Amino acid sequence: MVPVLSERISRLKPSPVREILAAAAGREIISLAGGLPAEEAMPTPNAMPEGWKQYSRTEGEDRLRQRISEHLEARGVHCPASRVLITNGSQQGLDLAAKLLVDPGTSVLCESPTYISALQVFGLFGAQFDGISIGHAGPDPEWIGQHVSKTQARVAYLIPSFQNPTGALWSDEARDAFAQAVDARNGEGDSLVLVEDDPYGEIGFGVTPPRPICARLKRSPWILLGSFSKSYLPGIRLGWLACSEELFPFLERLKQAADLHSSRLSQALALADLEDPNRPQRLDALRSRYREKRDAFADSLHRHFPDARWTAPDGGLFFWAHLAPGLDLRPIAPRAMAEGVAFLPGEHCFASDPELGWARLNFSHASPERADEGLRRLAGVIQLSSAVRTR
Amino acid sequence: MVPVLSERISRLKPSPVREILAAAAGREIISLAGGLPAEEAMPTPNAMPEGWKQYSRTEGEDRLRQRISEHLEARGVHCPASRVLITNGSQQGLDLAAKLLVDPGTSVLCESPTYISALQVFGLFGAQFDGISIGHAGPDPEWIGQHVSKTQARVAYLIPSFQNPTGALWSDEARDAFAQAVDARNGEGDSLVLVEDDPYGEIGFGVTPPRPICARLKRSPWILLGSFSKSYLPGIRLGWLACSEELFPFLERLKQAADLHSSRLSQALALADLEDPNRPQRLDALRSRYREKRDAFADSLHRHFPDARWTAPDGGLFFWAHLAPGLDLRPIAPRAMAEGVAFLPGEHCFASDPELGWARLNFSHASPERADEGLRRLAGVIQLSSAVRTR
Repeated sequence: MVPVLSERISRLKPSPVREILAAAAGREIISLAGGLPAEEAMPTPNAMPEGWKQYSRTEGEDRLRQRISEHLEARGVHCPASRVLITNGSQQGLDLAAKLLVDPGTSVLCESPTYISALQVFGLFGAQFDGISIGHAGPDPEWIGQHVSKTQARVAYLIPSFQNPTGALWSDEARDAFAQAVDARNGEGDSLVLVEDDPYGEIGFGVTPPRPICARLKRSPWILLGSFSKSYLPGIRLGWLACSEELFPFLERLKQAADLHSSRLSQALALADLEDPNRPQRLDALRSRYREKRDAFADSLHRHFPDARWTAPDGGLFFWAHLAPGLDLRPIAPRAMAEGVAFLPGEHCFASDPELGWARLNFSHASPERADEGLRRLAGVIQLSSAVRTR
Repeated sequence: MVPVLSERISRLKPSPVREILAAAAGREIISLAGGLPAEEAMPTPNAMPEGWKQYSRTEGEDRLRQRISEHLEARGVHCPASRVLITNGSQQGLDLAAKLLVDPGTSVLCESPTYISALQVFGLFGAQFDGISIGHAGPDPEWIGQHVSKTQARVAYLIPSFQNPTGALWSDEARDAFAQAVDARNGEGDSLVLVEDDPYGEIGFGVTPPRPICARLKRSPWILLGSFSKSYLPGIRLGWLACSEELFPFLERLKQAADLHSSRLSQALALADLEDPNRPQRLDALRSRYREKRDAFADSLHRHFPDARWTAPDGGLFFWAHLAPGLDLRPIAPRAMAEGVAFLPGEHCFASDPELGWARLNFSHASPERADEGLRRLAGVIQLSSAVRTR
């Protein structure tokens, strides 16, 4: 059974050229079909792996897809390489998912607050958001069943591991409950597709996230998004998606129409990293460093915002802190910028009806000394604005 | 005056994070705003230019944009670097243009036949095509004025230099006439945006294309698409778009929502190529090689299809040949594949009502010997099918 897809998908045609090239792959075919430039005339820059200069397959390099499939298996997600699609970061996975699933008026269930650029791209295609509040271990498992059974949502977009911006880590129970609720919806002739975003799964500080929600589904369509930006290099702009079987052909065609395929140069680097025997040690060192930065950041928050409400995150890149309850931080941002400190006003992260006074604060980038100085200045700006307000 | 844009653009929100980062660029700002991983913890692969590991600006690297602006200036297009956007090949330029301009039912004027993947992506967003026939020098200049003044099209998609698939090279007169007709439409309170696709402009065999149509416009909105795939390396999947001033902010946001920015690694390679003093000689050698391949291909076509109608292209990568008038070549393609030769049935390239029996034949990739063998086999398959048909 194919889930309910967007109206535009009925107009999504496969490219006959890509189909011909795919059929010709690995065979001795004289191809007069594609628009392939002459390989023998291509220059050889240092950085380009030999044999990777030409156009390639939409879905990505097979060996890289295989490594990602193994990586997923190790995390409890059974997904063969044939259902892995290489993307330009997980952001492109969101673009493809939105094209696949969202028409004007389509209801999308999401955590609120959530990742702002997901709101941007789902919103572009016309999503109406059904935002749900979550605690530090995700939503209450009992509440999930009730809410999901009665929501009109056709898409559920979640970031269950070290959520952006809250840092929340959904518990095993919440994940199970959500998976069961989604399965129940799809079992009743209804359609609800899970889009699970997991950019931070490998960036836990002494905590390993439970199995992804998609791995707990028994009969529902799903898309899982991953990224090389946090665990390797943002500059290569590379990520991947894995999905249930019925969705793959559509997502592959959408990727084809979007940009044919991702940079092979970036793919070569990501592959080298996944096959690097030192990768586990490198990630351990990264997590240790981030943990230290998180702890230092927590100390600074205590010092400069003694009354603020927040919980130190167990992973990811952000603190989510209620710095000034009731104060809209959006007009504060330019004043803070004038004082030399940038932050994201939390109001932007809510699907609707923002709760005022929250801030998303990144702790991974600035040095502890600079972050401390930034928080000191931010506290000064907010204090001044609060004083003006209460006067 | 902003031209008529797609319905979804009213929902396109800028990312506050990207705006904050842009405001902070080049200043001494303590950023707690973005989700930037720690640079000091990133590995250093051989291929990655130092300083290009981190996330970057949506619009692309400034130095690369500057080189493209100069490249455009040399071709008669005045476009500052601030209106150049780096994309994942020109295909992504088409995706962004379609998102910007096409709603279900939007009329898109295009050459027919045209580039199949443009039909795919404009069609996905709901375009209705107004296909125009062209000769080897483009459409008749007098006819252009009449047709463009009465078409309902809001978008004109053209490939005026070594068109895909026909190889047509629009004359100076046809370009002038089209530019005037578009300006006339936009002068009457109406809206018509020119999307000009130019992947082959540098691949002419002893022929330099006239100035792009967009450079002849006086008051109309336009987008010009370019690619590094034909003149450099397809595997890096990199291209660019340039556009008129009012369109840039929308296209930049659409790129942001699509994938944040393009691979910096690919951008570094493209920049190195544009700054390579040997680039002109390299391109000369490429053109010479392609010209030889074209001539050999023409000989083979004469030999194996003595009755076919075609004109040898002065640039680009394709022959467009009427191999079997009246015979639908779509069912022929799998039979040819079984004989070890792949080609693109021309029927796929028409916006509507395909003329039967045309083939798009790539001459740049296969060696002359292999191409000759491919045409020999293709002639055999077509002869057999024609015989079956007339029996």
